[in-house]
Amino acid sequence: MQRTLSHHLPVRIGETVRIAGWVHRRRLLKSVAFLIVRDAAGLAQVVVTDPAVRAELEKLTEETVVEVTATVTANDTAPAGVELTDPAVRPLGPPAVPPPFDLYRPALTASLPTQLDNAPTALRHPTRSSALRISAAAVAGFRAALDAQRFVEVHTPKVVSSSTESGANVFALDWFGGPAYLAQSPQFYKQLMVGVFERVYEVGPVFRAEPHDTVRHLAQYTSLDAELGFVADHCDVMRVLRDTLAGMLGTVGERAGGALTTLGVDVPVVPAEIPAVHFTEALAIAGAPADEPDLAPAHERALGEWARREHGSDFLFVTGYPMAKRPFYTHPDPARPAYSNGFDLLFRGLELVTGGQRLHRHADYLAALAARGEPTEPYAGYLDAFRHGMPPHGGFAIGLERFVARLVGAANIREVTAFPRDLHRLTP
Amino acid sequence: MQRTLSHHLPVRIGETVRIAGWVHRRRLLKSVAFLIVRDAAGLAQVVVTDPAVRAELEKLTEETVVEVTATVTANDTAPAGVELTDPAVRPLGPPAVPPPFDLYRPALTASLPTQLDNAPTALRHPTRSSALRISAAAVAGFRAALDAQRFVEVHTPKVVSSSTESGANVFALDWFGGPAYLAQSPQFYKQLMVGVFERVYEVGPVFRAEPHDTVRHLAQYTSLDAELGFVADHCDVMRVLRDTLAGMLGTVGERAGGALTTLGVDVPVVPAEIPAVHFTEALAIAGAPADEPDLAPAHERALGEWARREHGSDFLFVTGYPMAKRPFYTHPDPARPAYSNGFDLLFRGLELVTGGQRLHRHADYLAALAARGEPTEPYAGYLDAFRHGMPPHGGFAIGLERFVARLVGAANIREVTAFPRDLHRLTP
Repeated sequence: MQRTLSHHLPVRIGETVRIAGWVHRRRLLKSVAFLIVRDAAGLAQVVVTDPAVRAELEKLTEETVVEVTATVTANDTAPAGVELTDPAVRPLGPPAVPPPFDLYRPALTASLPTQLDNAPTALRHPTRSSALRISAAAVAGFRAALDAQRFVEVHTPKVVSSSTESGANVFALDWFGGPAYLAQSPQFYKQLMVGVFERVYEVGPVFRAEPHDTVRHLAQYTSLDAELGFVADHCDVMRVLRDTLAGMLGTVGERAGGALTTLGVDVPVVPAEIPAVHFTEALAIAGAPADEPDLAPAHERALGEWARREHGSDFLFVTGYPMAKRPFYTHPDPARPAYSNGFDLLFRGLELVTGGQRLHRHADYLAALAARGEPTEPYAGYLDAFRHGMPPHGGFAIGLERFVARLVGAANIREVTAFPRDLHRLTP
Repeated sequence: MQRTLSHHLPVRIGETVRIAGWVHRRRLLKSVAFLIVRDAAGLAQVVVTDPAVRAELEKLTEETVVEVTATVTANDTAPAGVELTDPAVRPLGPPAVPPPFDLYRPALTASLPTQLDNAPTALRHPTRSSALRISAAAVAGFRAALDAQRFVEVHTPKVVSSSTESGANVFALDWFGGPAYLAQSPQFYKQLMVGVFERVYEVGPVFRAEPHDTVRHLAQYTSLDAELGFVADHCDVMRVLRDTLAGMLGTVGERAGGALTTLGVDVPVVPAEIPAVHFTEALAIAGAPADEPDLAPAHERALGEWARREHGSDFLFVTGYPMAKRPFYTHPDPARPAYSNGFDLLFRGLELVTGGQRLHRHADYLAALAARGEPTEPYAGYLDAFRHGMPPHGGFAIGLERFVARLVGAANIREVTAFPRDLHRLTP
């Protein structure tokens, strides 16, 4: 008999079905016992009155995998209006050792470290699995939005020969006896691929040897990267980012509605045009001194409140960050060269995305590196491509876990990461 | 003026348009000059008669990025029946240094090492970019096929604490001062996630410190991994793989038709049911001794010919490989425990996919490791999950680059990889 998933039971009333899943909970009352079976689609209630089946059930601990063949019976007081009666219950493995927390309670009461130590079982809890379902939907939306705008997906090296992009915070590796490094981002490769496909994206792991232990940093995270050529300036990039974000949140709404409900999350609306303020205006709005070189978290919060109040928007672009605070490949604002054609996107007062226009002329790269007192040699393979014709281009990167954490309001990024990696954690 | 892509020119006859792209080729004849501009969509022919424009054109080397504003004019002898006349040509950067090979010739004549050394420009050649477009379409098809079968996408750690899965061929890493290793596959993690979502997939990089230099091996490749629970045995996995392959090839046909034409590739048909032979039968068909422990490449070729001849199929499953040749987590055939519930999929006589049913009981894992004389301690985090209730499950892994190489008939896997990593190559 074909397996039936729990959410299909309401349309099978009167039929004999086979379900399978985990023993979510048992309630052994005097005259009747209830077995709640959890499968990928939800929960099913099984009513046990037969003493022999009940004796079996008493041996089946929580999380044991079982198969139940039974009759679907309408019952207005049961979850989803149906329950399974007259069941035969067959374990598909030995009785499970219950995990060190109750998965059937509405919230996981274990501390976050205990949850992370026991990730394979903690992730079975709806609050944890829902965040990962939202994450999967967000990535699907990212790809769909960019596919629709003729971007091509690429896969680039995660091991590189020099620790170039930010120098510090890089993991060193033994590559067949020589030195190598884990890639901190696909930045250089996605730029090179603009020369091939004009528009590219990549979804993949990036590695940061962040020596500090915070609720916002992971040593491996999933970066959603896009890069596009033939832009007039960073505004073209911001328009693509706006449509990509709208696509991501749209797909989250379509594909992960149940997960949103579980977590009590409302999907924010992305305005047709996200409000944008220049860095210098942003300082004024936030009440910061005009010579501040960057926005502090308190400034970002103030800007978030301002965007909500003045524009009814959860999102705000801040453009024109000072060149001194952006990476060497950033394109300056031609009209005010101390400021960049780089931007951040704030979501509810927190930085969510960084992007901008990049340099595209070989000579500009040489000048930018010289101005920073950096040698060109470690960048040789990257720089060379700019001698062979590269269009004006720009792009952005979204940290997936950070995006999901902010969307669901998680206090710690580890709550929305299946198996986080950080300063202290390399297992499970 | 909005930019027009080259493939839209035939519907803009008589209009003034702006195109942009790379100087693909110039032909400077006596009374007229032709400029061929390449963009992401193809080629456009620009006719230059004005002496001033011609003088400009003479300075624009191949691969210089340009913008052309001109009139779209019908001409039956031009590519796609249109050309651009009366043009204004504006470079978007300095004249390009031409790459060390001609991108406008039908084939790249440079040696593969030269191409790989100059990947950012070599990949601009249609033969190289077409393979990557096919690759992108194949991955999109993989995901769509599995999304439709209620799989959930996951992202798992690429850095792990012990070099467990195959012991050798692992890259060692300095993780905040302690030892760590690059993951050779997401095998353990995708199994653990079956306990959460029942069905999961991951597309991501895997790392193999293969000490040999062959046309089939890369030190980093993209693995398409799937794993599903509540299977009866490996046949359920094979059915999902069949539908996944059909989805991949279907999407390649839909999304990468131009790339297939460029490379002269016909997409093979996946039979509704892929023929399957047991390992013992396979030996007999291939004319190998009955006590051979594995299939040699010559045997696989013979089996490929047999499948084509007897079943009209480019694909053939070989099931029941001897347990001794499969990893410790492989589920044995309950009826013949020396043989496994593992399979390979041969495509045109070459192994393309490995998969099978896995063990799901904790005690079976302990016994399997003990039988191989292996300690359990390095596997602690993985094994522990099997104490907490795991359903019968199985899965498969497809090497993306190998899949594309075989589909397009590439002699070397590096021809279909943007920036390959191997024993000798860590740049660009």
